[in-house]
Amino acid sequence: MTEIRPFRDPDWSSVWPMLQATFAAGDSYSFAPDIGEAEARRIWIDAPLATFVAEEDGEILGTYFIKPNQPALGAHVCNCGYVVAARAQGRGIAARLCEHSQRWAVEQGFRAMQFNFVVASNERAVRLWERLGFSVVGRLPGAFRHHRLGFVDALVMFKTLAP
Amino acid sequence: MTEIRPFRDPDWSSVWPMLQATFAAGDSYSFAPDIGEAEARRIWIDAPLATFVAEEDGEILGTYFIKPNQPALGAHVCNCGYVVAARAQGRGIAARLCEHSQRWAVEQGFRAMQFNFVVASNERAVRLWERLGFSVVGRLPGAFRHHRLGFVDALVMFKTLAP
Repeated sequence: MTEIRPFRDPDWSSVWPMLQATFAAGDSYSFAPDIGEAEARRIWIDAPLATFVAEEDGEILGTYFIKPNQPALGAHVCNCGYVVAARAQGRGIAARLCEHSQRWAVEQGFRAMQFNFVVASNERAVRLWERLGFSVVGRLPGAFRHHRLGFVDALVMFKTLAP
Repeated sequence: MTEIRPFRDPDWSSVWPMLQATFAAGDSYSFAPDIGEAEARRIWIDAPLATFVAEEDGEILGTYFIKPNQPALGAHVCNCGYVVAARAQGRGIAARLCEHSQRWAVEQGFRAMQFNFVVASNERAVRLWERLGFSVVGRLPGAFRHHRLGFVDALVMFKTLAP
């Protein structure tokens, strides 16, 4: 049984290696592949409004953050980032995290969710977000420097949550 | 003769009222209309890579900041914000600031410039950026809470600077 619950301090020792591995891959997030632990903690835990983890039998399998995507006059649209542990890929955990984040966002009064920078070559992610109701509303030519493919497009994806 | 030059500390007493008036209008930037001086200074001066001012006969008529729009793997695309004093509107100062920022960006090695959040109802701005070579590459439905019009779309605009 996978439970999604708020991040607690002792979770960091599981979350950090997951973030480190994901960013090091250089194919999905723009954060430095050699990001330091303090900076990772700042962006994933301290800066966001909230951070959640997916836990199963005491093991952390995934995590997401949520925050307003803009200040005051744009703060009704939220932004999230999701990471799933390599060993837990393909089990639908990213989808469950995203569904959880949408429900939580609505409870907090957010009216929409925006992903600013979905790497176009990350087709599995693009398909997943589309399946979960997001639309591609923008394309940024060559905005992501992929570790293997060079400059690739990044997509802006958006979902209205409340009328 | 209008000169565009790097921001210096004594300029703040001219720049701050200009920012304050622009944000207070609630029709172009998402920053809180009642933003405090310290926060305005953080976003316009401290956080960016550089800030410039347009000066004429010792008077500051406009200002812009420039910064990478994303961390490491997206840091080849820059982002700018421009503000012109109310009394200097309609004299082409925004265009000159934007042209200056594009040249400076290229010198710094940026390959493109992106505006994340151009309020769609701000038609003068949209037309100006289009005239200066930017394209609308995305539309964010209802992402801006306009002080008078309610929820309006925001546009993502983009210009490739280097091949």
